[in-house]
Amino acid sequence: MPEQLTLYGHRHSSTSMIVAIALSEAKAEHTFYEVDLRNKPAWFAENINPAGKVPAITYGGPTVPPDQPSPQSTKLAESLVLVELVADLHPAAGLLPSDPLKRAKVRFFVTTVQTRYLEPYFHWFAFGRPGAWREIYEGARAIQALLPESGEGYAVGEEFTTADCVFAPAAGRTKIAYERGIGRFPPEEAVQLRELMDAPEMARFRAYVGRVLERPSVKANFGEDWVAEGTKVVVELFNQRDAASAST
Amino acid sequence: MPEQLTLYGHRHSSTSMIVAIALSEAKAEHTFYEVDLRNKPAWFAENINPAGKVPAITYGGPTVPPDQPSPQSTKLAESLVLVELVADLHPAAGLLPSDPLKRAKVRFFVTTVQTRYLEPYFHWFAFGRPGAWREIYEGARAIQALLPESGEGYAVGEEFTTADCVFAPAAGRTKIAYERGIGRFPPEEAVQLRELMDAPEMARFRAYVGRVLERPSVKANFGEDWVAEGTKVVVELFNQRDAASAST
Repeated sequence: MPEQLTLYGHRHSSTSMIVAIALSEAKAEHTFYEVDLRNKPAWFAENINPAGKVPAITYGGPTVPPDQPSPQSTKLAESLVLVELVADLHPAAGLLPSDPLKRAKVRFFVTTVQTRYLEPYFHWFAFGRPGAWREIYEGARAIQALLPESGEGYAVGEEFTTADCVFAPAAGRTKIAYERGIGRFPPEEAVQLRELMDAPEMARFRAYVGRVLERPSVKANFGEDWVAEGTKVVVELFNQRDAASAST
Repeated sequence: MPEQLTLYGHRHSSTSMIVAIALSEAKAEHTFYEVDLRNKPAWFAENINPAGKVPAITYGGPTVPPDQPSPQSTKLAESLVLVELVADLHPAAGLLPSDPLKRAKVRFFVTTVQTRYLEPYFHWFAFGRPGAWREIYEGARAIQALLPESGEGYAVGEEFTTADCVFAPAAGRTKIAYERGIGRFPPEEAVQLRELMDAPEMARFRAYVGRVLERPSVKANFGEDWVAEGTKVVVELFNQRDAASAST
């Protein structure tokens, strides 16, 4: 019998989604526990992740209720650490290629997504940082340049890997922002970005995004409609916080 | 015969050091090419790393002069990608444990070093950001909490792993800053930080730093004296740039 694995996360957290997608992909038996992020239980930071952030996991030890974690299980955090752990625990799922060079390409793809796509997206979405929408486009071009020349498959070839797990929520969220205009940026920037992203020279990138978002493991953890609704709530919270700090 | 590997880096670049230490540790045959960072050759960005940054490598393909890279070799960049590639290419060196949980611990250690030790160090060293020296201390405590309970060995146990390769330059540079006061921070902050770091409760951390800096693969790529001299030059360059921008 495999060791128990409990994922502490949140449906709407992109970093939790990365790990949840990998677990779905590996068909790994596990327990999901949704942490109340607005009212975090004290035991979470005390006994699971001192940083207080999701995602985190417990692995091994006795089977216990998730809100009463055992001191005997191993606790780990950080989405990029956890996604590689899932790959290592389930080698048959092919989430990490066995060839060292291909593994390096997977990791380089992840770094590119994080620094050139996800970071500008976040600055654009949350703060409307000027110029960020252009960086998102440049990031998409950089990602497109890494895709297989066949124009098919996933980040580094036929197999769906940890690179695709990491890309999925970033791709979906960015699409929601520029297609539906949800975020704290000037609306015309969304129109401009959409025009660039819909242009013929981005066809390979768009096709890849489409394949990723249609992957069953991704669909199980990321639905454009319900994520868009959650995103509107986040925008509203940001706005309220700004209004509150402006009035004090 | 193993494939050719050429590391493009710079003696004084911390990220290059990480890869160089891993290569030394694995006793991997390779060519080192020092890129002139103040006057980068055009072929470097054109044919090796479009981002123009060191470290980068070429792997495989025919044996060619490093300044005439072959289109047939694989090009890769990003120190954390490269250090894992070296580990994967040389499994016998034990740079990554085979146990999935231990591998995850290695990667979590790396993340902790990057976000809680290296980032505040850089902000303190380069910009004297207020409070950064305290964050360095908190980071050192977080790292100490991850060390094996035996009080011996390295980041995650007896083996020297990629976690230690990543930690080495961060540990050495921070030590140089607070022991010798080299950096763009108020001198009294270095005195305060040194006091905290030299206190009895940091003994386990200090002993680990000592073991890492004494490791032959580290000594071959990081010498406190020559790194300190190079660091003074960087401080001078930063100061000149600030003076120039203030006078325009």
